[in-house]
Amino acid sequence: MNKNNEDFSNCPLPIDSSSFITLAHGGGGKLTHQLIEKLFRPAFNNSELETQHDGAVINIPSEKLALTTDSYVVRPLIFPGGNIGSLAVNGTVNDLAMCGAQPLYLTAAFILEEGLPMELLWTIVQAMKRSADHAGVKIITGDTKVVDKGKGDGIFINTSGVGVIEHSLKIHPKSIQPGDVVLLSGDIGRHGIAIMAAREGLGFQDQVESDCAAVSHLVQNLINAGIEIHCMRDLTRGGLATALIEMAQTSAVSINIIESEIPVREDVKGACEILGLDPFYVANEGRFVVFVKADHAKYAMEVMRKDELGSQASIIGTVMEAPKETVILKTQIGTSRILDMLSGEQLPRIC
Amino acid sequence: MNKNNEDFSNCPLPIDSSSFITLAHGGGGKLTHQLIEKLFRPAFNNSELETQHDGAVINIPSEKLALTTDSYVVRPLIFPGGNIGSLAVNGTVNDLAMCGAQPLYLTAAFILEEGLPMELLWTIVQAMKRSADHAGVKIITGDTKVVDKGKGDGIFINTSGVGVIEHSLKIHPKSIQPGDVVLLSGDIGRHGIAIMAAREGLGFQDQVESDCAAVSHLVQNLINAGIEIHCMRDLTRGGLATALIEMAQTSAVSINIIESEIPVREDVKGACEILGLDPFYVANEGRFVVFVKADHAKYAMEVMRKDELGSQASIIGTVMEAPKETVILKTQIGTSRILDMLSGEQLPRIC
Repeated sequence: MNKNNEDFSNCPLPIDSSSFITLAHGGGGKLTHQLIEKLFRPAFNNSELETQHDGAVINIPSEKLALTTDSYVVRPLIFPGGNIGSLAVNGTVNDLAMCGAQPLYLTAAFILEEGLPMELLWTIVQAMKRSADHAGVKIITGDTKVVDKGKGDGIFINTSGVGVIEHSLKIHPKSIQPGDVVLLSGDIGRHGIAIMAAREGLGFQDQVESDCAAVSHLVQNLINAGIEIHCMRDLTRGGLATALIEMAQTSAVSINIIESEIPVREDVKGACEILGLDPFYVANEGRFVVFVKADHAKYAMEVMRKDELGSQASIIGTVMEAPKETVILKTQIGTSRILDMLSGEQLPRIC
Repeated sequence: MNKNNEDFSNCPLPIDSSSFITLAHGGGGKLTHQLIEKLFRPAFNNSELETQHDGAVINIPSEKLALTTDSYVVRPLIFPGGNIGSLAVNGTVNDLAMCGAQPLYLTAAFILEEGLPMELLWTIVQAMKRSADHAGVKIITGDTKVVDKGKGDGIFINTSGVGVIEHSLKIHPKSIQPGDVVLLSGDIGRHGIAIMAAREGLGFQDQVESDCAAVSHLVQNLINAGIEIHCMRDLTRGGLATALIEMAQTSAVSINIIESEIPVREDVKGACEILGLDPFYVANEGRFVVFVKADHAKYAMEVMRKDELGSQASIIGTVMEAPKETVILKTQIGTSRILDMLSGEQLPRIC
């Protein structure tokens, strides 16, 4: 056991604090094979996992699929509430869920920097396995590359995902219509603040944990309940505001939201004030908005609240015809302001 | 037109030699949107391309699919015969082909380093589009991340691929049997030497071009001709020798190959001698071996030779029962030697 109380004795590749990734681990020779067979394969252990062939062969019981990809470059690699491994699984699972798909399979491709501690890699791949199990997906094929020291940043992970779509809903920004009601699955701003606090070593890092989680079962519950979903979006880079602005632009509608209905934890509010950030633009990793037919909104909220992840779900606004491509926030003091897309980013490398 | 005679005027995002990637291009705000809508979307232009949603929805007319992923970290980014973009498409197309799948869709995820020249990015994504068109695949969804200067190496690309399997062959190392015949699709060693020459600025870099190419149509021709294929493998990292050793180990057979039947160009031989490399271990990006039922071998060779990419296809050996897990090379001077897996790598970062 090391100082973080993590157990490394369960890794079939003998590793200790003096084991590091070398360029030779990416060369395709003996060391690459050892890494695959004694670290990745045992970590991701499942019957479909194909490490001896160029890809995996799968049987999919549906013709309609969703396909998605994301590379994760978060810094630091470990943060309160998760690490780059859990983020890489949950983020891609959530992208599939936002398409209305049931996530089934993931690929995992690693770009390792020479000198990465082997214990850290084992910690990360174990988190990936736990997150995959929790979300009900299987990691079935992968890739490992190693880059020279100073040409990477510890580890970058790409996960791509395949899911099946087994309903007839058309879930897309273009399906959003005037009259639709907007629901938010929970409080916002935690992931970005947790990352920022961990990165900068700020004092409040123990209070704010990332919301990093898979929301696919919450989405499946909505679909199974017969809710007419028009669109969904997870609130990652750019946060709630950017997601809503994007959707207002694509669907050429006006989205009107009410500040008082949007939960932001007090500690997140405090951290945002200190850091000069607007929580509406701060990234989340386990939160999403869903646009539904107006008379389904209340039932949708009830369905979401039955699940722990959606216990704070709320109706935050409605869709109007005009002014087109605009998001209007009704503030707590009763005024209205237009939310605009930021030029760059508040926080770099949060996912 | 710039000094390489590349035309940048066709990029809808106004770019010139003073345009560079900034951290803000990865932040999810206006600059990210501009990059996606005015560079990636026009480059990959196709009807399925989904840039306004979290993933792409596709209809697949078969239940049996192959899924594969690869990250590309090749250095230098541009080399004789290709660049990281063409490599990223061809490499993943070939991995699908090696599973016996017809490649259909790719995802593309970019990790860009702050300071990457925009012209270079446009050159690379145009090469991806050309390679995708040539191989008959569509790039349908993607992701862009930006890392701080000094935390990446210009650009890393992940491509994941989906293909359909529409035959009943069991193409897998475990299907290899004693008596099988081994065919090689062409000369070996060019990709690794081209990369090495370009990287080190060696004098012979104009002579040796990478063999980087998609071999999926060659594979499809073999399947359509009714050849009983037992296994295939493209000869990337570790080259011909490593691929054969891996397959001998997985299938617990002996693979016997004849040096005089394996084409190596004179310039590649010369470069290998100067660099102290063994061409059998040097990477290729458009070459593969195929294991077939013995009495199908000659016809398979004829089918391959009808295509330009397979014009030098040859029968290079046979599979024997023992000694198990061993690759034996019969040399040109009549002796035999066992090929062993290298511990690390001859050439780092060739793909």
